Amino acid sequence: MRMAELSGRSGVPIPTIKFYLREGLLAPGVRTSPNQADYADTHVRRLALIRALLDVGGLSVATTRTVLDRLDDPDADPDVSLGKVQYSLTSPATADADALARVDDLIRRLGWQVRAANPARISLADALTALGRLGRDDVLAALDRYADAVHAVADVDVALVVGRPTPDDQAETMVVAMVLGDALLAALRRLAQEDVFNRRA
Amino acid sequence: MRMAELSGRSGVPIPTIKFYLREGLLAPGVRTSPNQADYADTHVRRLALIRALLDVGGLSVATTRTVLDRLDDPDADPDVSLGKVQYSLTSPATADADALARVDDLIRRLGWQVRAANPARISLADALTALGRLGRDDVLAALDRYADAVHAVADVDVALVVGRPTPDDQAETMVVAMVLGDALLAALRRLAQEDVFNRRA
Repeated sequence: MRMAELSGRSGVPIPTIKFYLREGLLAPGVRTSPNQADYADTHVRRLALIRALLDVGGLSVATTRTVLDRLDDPDADPDVSLGKVQYSLTSPATADADALARVDDLIRRLGWQVRAANPARISLADALTALGRLGRDDVLAALDRYADAVHAVADVDVALVVGRPTPDDQAETMVVAMVLGDALLAALRRLAQEDVFNRRA
Repeated sequence: MRMAELSGRSGVPIPTIKFYLREGLLAPGVRTSPNQADYADTHVRRLALIRALLDVGGLSVATTRTVLDRLDDPDADPDVSLGKVQYSLTSPATADADALARVDDLIRRLGWQVRAANPARISLADALTALGRLGRDDVLAALDRYADAVHAVADVDVALVVGRPTPDDQAETMVVAMVLGDALLAALRRLAQEDVFNRRA
């Protein structure tokens, strides 16, 4: 299909599609003349994924490119690639050593099988450092209860991923479940909080 | 205390403190001379909260100012103010009518007591629209399971909030639990996913 049809079917304006092409988020179409190219159904699908990552997931263009590159890497071992997609969605900083030790204690106490390379260890340590700085021992004391509830969320995530037929499908599901999932869970959490408050009142 | 001591105790550099003062995130100290002011313990605590919202929570300066203004509003009814703090942490857009109807169906089906004014309805509808565009009926079908797991998270949130002695404390806990909570839960979720994957393998 031509770019005009791609725009119509995806709902993405032509200038925006050109921006995604320039930024390397969308693969070029097959050239049919010096200023025309042919696009396929995979482009429609990819545009939906790009918009989801940018608009709903709130990822930057650079992070979106990294995630899509991981998805498209033909040499990736499917199992390794799922982990890589997951890891590329977490932006690690440097963590305080005490907070990191606290995270590792938690992981050990829960018996979770998690590699030291998982960057979410550092993200979690950063959150714990901020809580410690605010003197919020009550929130720190609730960590195990939060972890139990979140493990039930991860069960749903993983069931969705392994339910997909092909490694490509699984990797895309991982991205969707992670990025849209964060937005979706944050929204559900705000609704559930109001419900819990109202029931107590 | 002088600004140098405030900087030392909070760990926030002086130029950054001056930026927060200019941006209206931090209340001015009490002037003791034309170029000196006196700061209190409340300033140390507020700096920790500002850093948590900006650095760990990833909020913009403008959103952080809105949240802090809500916290500081002396006329706020405590119950209303908790809702307002929660609402100000959710940035609503315009939602697709079908997706919004789907959200309201979900809320009804779950029996959750949620007001129509809760902006998280719109955030959730946006996530559902993106999933629909990606053809992810499998994720949409998992909504009820996600909702159940997230309700358990909200139980912990609300227990932390109502466990605080004063309305001010409760409002601050709401902010901390919401903003740091999103970061903390996202990190826990990534760790839990790896655990679930490893147990299946």
